[in-house]
Amino acid sequence: MKVGVLTGGGDCPGLNAVIRAVVRKGVQEYGYDFTGFRDGWRGPLEGDTVPLDIPAVRGILPRGGTVLGSSRTNPLKQRDGIRRIKENLSALGVDALITIGGEDTLGVATRLADEYGVPCVGVPKTIDNDLSATDYTFGFDTAVGIATEAIDRLHTTAESHMRVLVVEVMGRHAGWIALHSGLAGGANVILIPEQRFDVEQVCTWVTSRFRASYAPIVVVAEGAVPRDGDMVLKDESLDSYGHVRLSGVGEWLAKQIEKRTGKEARTTVLGHVQRGGTPSAFDRWLATRFGLHAIDCVRDGDFGKMVALRGTDIVRVPIAEATARLKTVDPALYEEVGVFFG
Amino acid sequence: MKVGVLTGGGDCPGLNAVIRAVVRKGVQEYGYDFTGFRDGWRGPLEGDTVPLDIPAVRGILPRGGTVLGSSRTNPLKQRDGIRRIKENLSALGVDALITIGGEDTLGVATRLADEYGVPCVGVPKTIDNDLSATDYTFGFDTAVGIATEAIDRLHTTAESHMRVLVVEVMGRHAGWIALHSGLAGGANVILIPEQRFDVEQVCTWVTSRFRASYAPIVVVAEGAVPRDGDMVLKDESLDSYGHVRLSGVGEWLAKQIEKRTGKEARTTVLGHVQRGGTPSAFDRWLATRFGLHAIDCVRDGDFGKMVALRGTDIVRVPIAEATARLKTVDPALYEEVGVFFG
Amino acid sequence: MKVGVLTGGGDCPGLNAVIRAVVRKGVQEYGYDFTGFRDGWRGPLEGDTVPLDIPAVRGILPRGGTVLGSSRTNPLKQRDGIRRIKENLSALGVDALITIGGEDTLGVATRLADEYGVPCVGVPKTIDNDLSATDYTFGFDTAVGIATEAIDRLHTTAESHMRVLVVEVMGRHAGWIALHSGLAGGANVILIPEQRFDVEQVCTWVTSRFRASYAPIVVVAEGAVPRDGDMVLKDESLDSYGHVRLSGVGEWLAKQIEKRTGKEARTTVLGHVQRGGTPSAFDRWLATRFGLHAIDCVRDGDFGKMVALRGTDIVRVPIAEATARLKTVDPALYEEVGVFFG
Amino acid sequence: MKVGVLTGGGDCPGLNAVIRAVVRKGVQEYGYDFTGFRDGWRGPLEGDTVPLDIPAVRGILPRGGTVLGSSRTNPLKQRDGIRRIKENLSALGVDALITIGGEDTLGVATRLADEYGVPCVGVPKTIDNDLSATDYTFGFDTAVGIATEAIDRLHTTAESHMRVLVVEVMGRHAGWIALHSGLAGGANVILIPEQRFDVEQVCTWVTSRFRASYAPIVVVAEGAVPRDGDMVLKDESLDSYGHVRLSGVGEWLAKQIEKRTGKEARTTVLGHVQRGGTPSAFDRWLATRFGLHAIDCVRDGDFGKMVALRGTDIVRVPIAEATARLKTVDPALYEEVGVFFG
Repeated sequence: MKVGVLTGGGDCPGLNAVIRAVVRKGVQEYGYDFTGFRDGWRGPLEGDTVPLDIPAVRGILPRGGTVLGSSRTNPLKQRDGIRRIKENLSALGVDALITIGGEDTLGVATRLADEYGVPCVGVPKTIDNDLSATDYTFGFDTAVGIATEAIDRLHTTAESHMRVLVVEVMGRHAGWIALHSGLAGGANVILIPEQRFDVEQVCTWVTSRFRASYAPIVVVAEGAVPRDGDMVLKDESLDSYGHVRLSGVGEWLAKQIEKRTGKEARTTVLGHVQRGGTPSAFDRWLATRFGLHAIDCVRDGDFGKMVALRGTDIVRVPIAEATARLKTVDPALYEEVGVFFG
Repeated sequence: MKVGVLTGGGDCPGLNAVIRAVVRKGVQEYGYDFTGFRDGWRGPLEGDTVPLDIPAVRGILPRGGTVLGSSRTNPLKQRDGIRRIKENLSALGVDALITIGGEDTLGVATRLADEYGVPCVGVPKTIDNDLSATDYTFGFDTAVGIATEAIDRLHTTAESHMRVLVVEVMGRHAGWIALHSGLAGGANVILIPEQRFDVEQVCTWVTSRFRASYAPIVVVAEGAVPRDGDMVLKDESLDSYGHVRLSGVGEWLAKQIEKRTGKEARTTVLGHVQRGGTPSAFDRWLATRFGLHAIDCVRDGDFGKMVALRGTDIVRVPIAEATARLKTVDPALYEEVGVFFG
Repeated sequence: MKVGVLTGGGDCPGLNAVIRAVVRKGVQEYGYDFTGFRDGWRGPLEGDTVPLDIPAVRGILPRGGTVLGSSRTNPLKQRDGIRRIKENLSALGVDALITIGGEDTLGVATRLADEYGVPCVGVPKTIDNDLSATDYTFGFDTAVGIATEAIDRLHTTAESHMRVLVVEVMGRHAGWIALHSGLAGGANVILIPEQRFDVEQVCTWVTSRFRASYAPIVVVAEGAVPRDGDMVLKDESLDSYGHVRLSGVGEWLAKQIEKRTGKEARTTVLGHVQRGGTPSAFDRWLATRFGLHAIDCVRDGDFGKMVALRGTDIVRVPIAEATARLKTVDPALYEEVGVFFG
Repeated sequence: MKVGVLTGGGDCPGLNAVIRAVVRKGVQEYGYDFTGFRDGWRGPLEGDTVPLDIPAVRGILPRGGTVLGSSRTNPLKQRDGIRRIKENLSALGVDALITIGGEDTLGVATRLADEYGVPCVGVPKTIDNDLSATDYTFGFDTAVGIATEAIDRLHTTAESHMRVLVVEVMGRHAGWIALHSGLAGGANVILIPEQRFDVEQVCTWVTSRFRASYAPIVVVAEGAVPRDGDMVLKDESLDSYGHVRLSGVGEWLAKQIEKRTGKEARTTVLGHVQRGGTPSAFDRWLATRFGLHAIDCVRDGDFGKMVALRGTDIVRVPIAEATARLKTVDPALYEEVGVFFG
């Protein structure tokens, strides 16, 4: 049995932990051979492989990124992409494929399985935590931890200068990182893509916070959008909600707050720091267990499935079902957290 | 409505986050008054209170420990303890009590409710994560994170000197901290209280690790016990499993490894560092949500209940049921993790 | 003896440690009284004070920011500013003033001393480490630590995607943070305000790094400037070197690299996170010792002096001399570090 | 030119940074070849080498420990040890040797140079910071940071339970780690090997701290010793001061405090965690600069020298002089810090 492994899409702390777990268990317990594919779907598309055995995965557990490399190469957009992958897998003698990735990566796996009968197992990966069918995805806890630590740091500087600090975190379509890090960091306003925000309401919260002699921290997801009419955008584009997308919502919001409240406001855009570096203990645990269960799917011949977290259990769900819709923040949860605004 | 709040048992990162959430929501949304009791059950037993309002909970979210103080005072062991508490609560005009604690603390709450009809709501707290009915308790993630970071650090010193490093972590009756931090830290052996360990097997794993030119890390829960006959103990006592308890299993094990393998071994006992300091983002999230739901129980008149985590939901379960049995590590999970031993 | 204390300019981890040390030693050993002034020079200018005694400084050692508040209020720019301060100090019975701040704040202290004979002692504060006469200023080590951790995190994401990561750090006029964090973080290019950079040279280093199968990290101080002719700026202004100042050099550079090398480049602007939060152990040590020596200056009647670090000793230097010129990166040191470029 | 490199004695964060800097500059700027020796002096004694070139040092900057391995092997204690080393170096064509280590390791280098004319350059290494001739040694700042973070964590647990927390840190003969981490962590008592302590005085400080409604943290160096008569020891031995050495001074002290004050006391022994893991930014900076200057000594033919930090400069001093005496804590500095006791 020869198993191919690839990691696609944006990188995420925990990818290496998955790879290590897959290989350790596959080799030691089931005697499988492995082939690593380089840079996501580019690997099988071009037949670009890298050796993958126990020595290759030693010491990678605490390391961020992916030793296999990643890319956003989408074979569905290339002529004969899927067919070329099928041929390369056959030529390499790969019997099954473990694909670690988000919606796009797993979507290709579904096509491969459906059209060419390639046995695929999926491992969900999105730092934004917006994939249905799993309670959490690895990388998310690390990102939330990094954002929370940044917010902790910004409190003291905000209060020393009685300034507003706006922190823009990741989350194009879902506000999970904003919600979790904002709550954990004691932010006074949290803005998410799922609910258009009202700049006047934000300013009311900001002002009320200053009245209590504290300085406000505003956490805003990169995909958060103000209500219609609140702004005129130059670089506007429509996002997946049909909303106007804003490049640099943090900067824009800080300027609005300054103009409307008369208080100084500063912006911090956390950016790629959120997705790099060593995974948190939680993410190493989750990613490792995902890997262990993914290789068990292969052994069981249980293909077309994705591993997922439910409570404290790892379960198997159909890949197609899992990627069907985005997991966004429930309005009730957002309201629950709203008690800390202002 | 006047609500009393107390924290009992060993302290735990996240206690302050619970207190803050209870008070913020209780005051802002429901207009309740609060009374803080000092040092767990000692507070209501002696009528020792501390003011508890929104200014009192400002800024405490990221702080470890508990602003209310804690103690292991058990009113069940005092003459008329439960009756005196009942009288003090009446005298202070306290209408309901939120008790944040582990088995012992919540057990008293059950008695208070059953015998005197005092309306109680429980919030589960155990750094060991060994309370049934909830997927996780706050404080656990922080402890695992601290232990994992320590294990990360010990790898490099182990390998530079080709030594065995034994790390003793918390966990008297349940091996959750050892299991999670050991897996996340890439330990080569993990020993938990739920399964007696065989020193010879440990030495086999240690030796096999050295053969791969790496140095082994052995993570052992403080309550782990070797098989019968493996040791003669001077300070022996029986634990709740009827096992012989060992004081200082880490030190003992290191000596055994040195004697049997001829390799140098060193021990690190992490101790109280695991339960102090700022909570992780995960624990702040969980503790805050526990607090928000606990005060909702009060508002709903839903007493005798404990809040609990199930997946990503906060649910309510009967206190009595929740503390009925210890949540220990499932043998199947321990075996799953065993692929990384040696 | 009544001693006034104020903190001016941008906040910096360690300010609270200075305040605590001054008060602890002043009260316990010398029996002094203290008056805290709010928000830098605004405090004495408007007679805005805050009580300052041992209870007021308990627990503030590990906290970032300043309990006294800070501002950039410059009394030299206000009519009769210096005279009003003098009058307020007299009215409040303040016998001596400890001013904790950078060039501007200490400059006012010099004027107060020279023109009105107000006994002043200075404590140097600049997160940029660009004050002459002292080996280091507190806050700098914390900022370097935060920037280094961010760079560590960015390596893995850079390599997983074979992208260039540009990290913009603080440092308008001096490149100390860029130099130290860039070296400590293993950056492949470090650009500082002291030496104009050549975009072509940067691209050569970037390309050479990719050839070694690694992805480059470029650390750039916010005040770094490309060579004449390299760019056309819209929002240009002259900095203290007579250089054209660039707003957003990081973003600009990333675009240039993409255009010239054909590689993807991403920018991270660390911003205020660098100056917030708990001080490093080194900064707590340094700030505390500065405080202890500042209050000794008061006791010795040694006014007009600033405390400074020389090796491991705290010494006293004339304030005026200390602020005379900016401490910038020596070309020889920059060249020493250049061995790691490319 | 072929240069040998070895690391001896206990490991220390920063060793890899030195090795990397030596090799990077030696190869790139001077065209040297390198030979790595395994496990300190064992390497040249037995001719055990490891390849050392630019690929071998990639990525090691942030890693703790030493890729060359270390040991306490002392060739002076072996028959013909020095002569065998000389012969192996000749056989391998090694023209100069860079030895990174503490007193013992550098002592051998001195003998090699004096007796056999082997050209040696020393790089000082001691986590305890007790080597004369240099302001700081790398590894020390990391150790202080780890100990300070632990103390930060212990404050909250101490205060929640109104307990004494005794923290035992490294430092057999010098109290630098205790002094710096104790001051930075806001400890209420700091005990160092340089001054015998009086248990009664410690108890007075502990009691006074409780009176202020806070709980005390006592930081004690592992080599700290109580005054004569204060204790009867079973495992006694004489240390380098002629003092009685105590194994487990932390545990002993906690028991004494409990007995004399009636307060609960707990002990944390930080152990090897202090010397492992990724170096702080300060230590990476210092270690890298030591490496760059050590290879410059080789190029200059300036042998018998050790690199050292003076202020912000790296200087060269005779090895023999540098190791002549231990750098211990000055009584005046200890007294300066004493203002925070109690």
